[in-house]
Amino acid sequence: MVGHMKSILFLFIFLVLSKTVISARKPSKSQPKPCKNFVLYYHDIMFGVDDVQNATSAAITNPPGLGNFKFGKLVIFDDPMTIDKNFQSEPVARAQGFYFYDMKNDYNAWFAYTLVFNSTQHKGTLNIMGADLMMVQSRDLSVVGGTGDFFMSRGIVTFETDTFEGAKYFRVKMDIKLYDCY
Amino acid sequence: MVGHMKSILFLFIFLVLSKTVISARKPSKSQPKPCKNFVLYYHDIMFGVDDVQNATSAAITNPPGLGNFKFGKLVIFDDPMTIDKNFQSEPVARAQGFYFYDMKNDYNAWFAYTLVFNSTQHKGTLNIMGADLMMVQSRDLSVVGGTGDFFMSRGIVTFETDTFEGAKYFRVKMDIKLYDCY
Amino acid sequence: MVGHMKSILFLFIFLVLSKTVISARKPSKSQPKPCKNFVLYYHDIMFGVDDVQNATSAAITNPPGLGNFKFGKLVIFDDPMTIDKNFQSEPVARAQGFYFYDMKNDYNAWFAYTLVFNSTQHKGTLNIMGADLMMVQSRDLSVVGGTGDFFMSRGIVTFETDTFEGAKYFRVKMDIKLYDCY
Repeated sequence: MVGHMKSILFLFIFLVLSKTVISARKPSKSQPKPCKNFVLYYHDIMFGVDDVQNATSAAITNPPGLGNFKFGKLVIFDDPMTIDKNFQSEPVARAQGFYFYDMKNDYNAWFAYTLVFNSTQHKGTLNIMGADLMMVQSRDLSVVGGTGDFFMSRGIVTFETDTFEGAKYFRVKMDIKLYDCY
Repeated sequence: MVGHMKSILFLFIFLVLSKTVISARKPSKSQPKPCKNFVLYYHDIMFGVDDVQNATSAAITNPPGLGNFKFGKLVIFDDPMTIDKNFQSEPVARAQGFYFYDMKNDYNAWFAYTLVFNSTQHKGTLNIMGADLMMVQSRDLSVVGGTGDFFMSRGIVTFETDTFEGAKYFRVKMDIKLYDCY
Repeated sequence: MVGHMKSILFLFIFLVLSKTVISARKPSKSQPKPCKNFVLYYHDIMFGVDDVQNATSAAITNPPGLGNFKFGKLVIFDDPMTIDKNFQSEPVARAQGFYFYDMKNDYNAWFAYTLVFNSTQHKGTLNIMGADLMMVQSRDLSVVGGTGDFFMSRGIVTFETDTFEGAKYFRVKMDIKLYDCY
């Protein structure tokens, strides 16, 4: 009986240690399920093309002429985030940050920004950065930190361009998946 | 006796697995205690308003005119960090990075920077980014990484504006709390 | 025998809990071994000094005059990453992002960028930020996130300037060490 007990104990040692390593380092190839997941739409309305009243972003540099795809144009934004595609819907968050174009032979961009939540549902921020590979239909950026309700969160944001209306307005579907929740 | 032992074992399984999950993912709502915590003061002295000798930062873009709150003004800094409020105290670190204003109807900013420590007490860096919601008294940014003595650290920096003397000088109290220490 | 069993059990409790804490928080002073490690060379060829055909980066601001070390010059890049020192070798990744100079009495810079991998060997991105303390021979920046094959990765990138040919071209050896692999 005690010998049997010992076997259980050793099996248990193995199981617990495996579990410990998995929890702490998650070395499995398949991506785990997000602990939080929500989709928001990002609306960018460019100042100069639209007026002060409507604009939510503005370019602060002129492209220096490296190619024909706005290389070096840097845009600062305070953009509304909504749960549907209508930019006039009540925002559930603001996206505050910047992007710039960075390729000489195609459109390509790079983003760093904060999602600022201040509603009864969510209070806090998510900090995001990464390449926006515009020629790829669906591309991933990193959630590198969070505060408030999103304390110390990390994860992935998947971008899909939803519409692009010339230089004036574009909309990006942002699928936010958090894998570290506290 | 062996039956009793079994109960202990199952209780133990439960306790260890709970502990494992808590340690690895920390799902509790209450924020854990920081493993490191220190308060520093950030001093920003603007070039153009002050001279080369004193200045620690400089604007590199002009606001494009979206509102009256400096939207789009981007400032690069190499600012001293001190343990008291006197900007002439011996710095314990440098803050190197940038901020910009990003709201059309109020003052609001966004920061990304590195705290560079090079003293007998601390050698290494902390990398920080996030929204500086200036209208809120106390706001949180993310420590997204660290090097040297702060190898792989993560955490929160809480900003409080300590003083604001026109366009020339401002001071921010930065309460740095690390929750991942190695 | 059962008493002996109890001792084993308590020893085991101690061992498992220690192991749990080590796995989850890694509090040891010595840095762990990377789970992935590779060295790449970064090549930056400046537009304006070189032509559109060859250039991989461009300055988008002029230094405002705070000192004589390009303080405030901001450069956006889409630079090739190669496994040897030849900038004409087939790139294994692109580095997309920006740097700026930020010191008034010496050369010093700050980087934020994404390594974009799109080969049969690696698909995905690594997001990196930190101070480039150019006067130090070897300096560390943070890998703050990853996507695709580098899902949720974190780590350190060690920079060493490999060559600096005036304003036209420089090459940096980047030693990428990931400590969180999934």
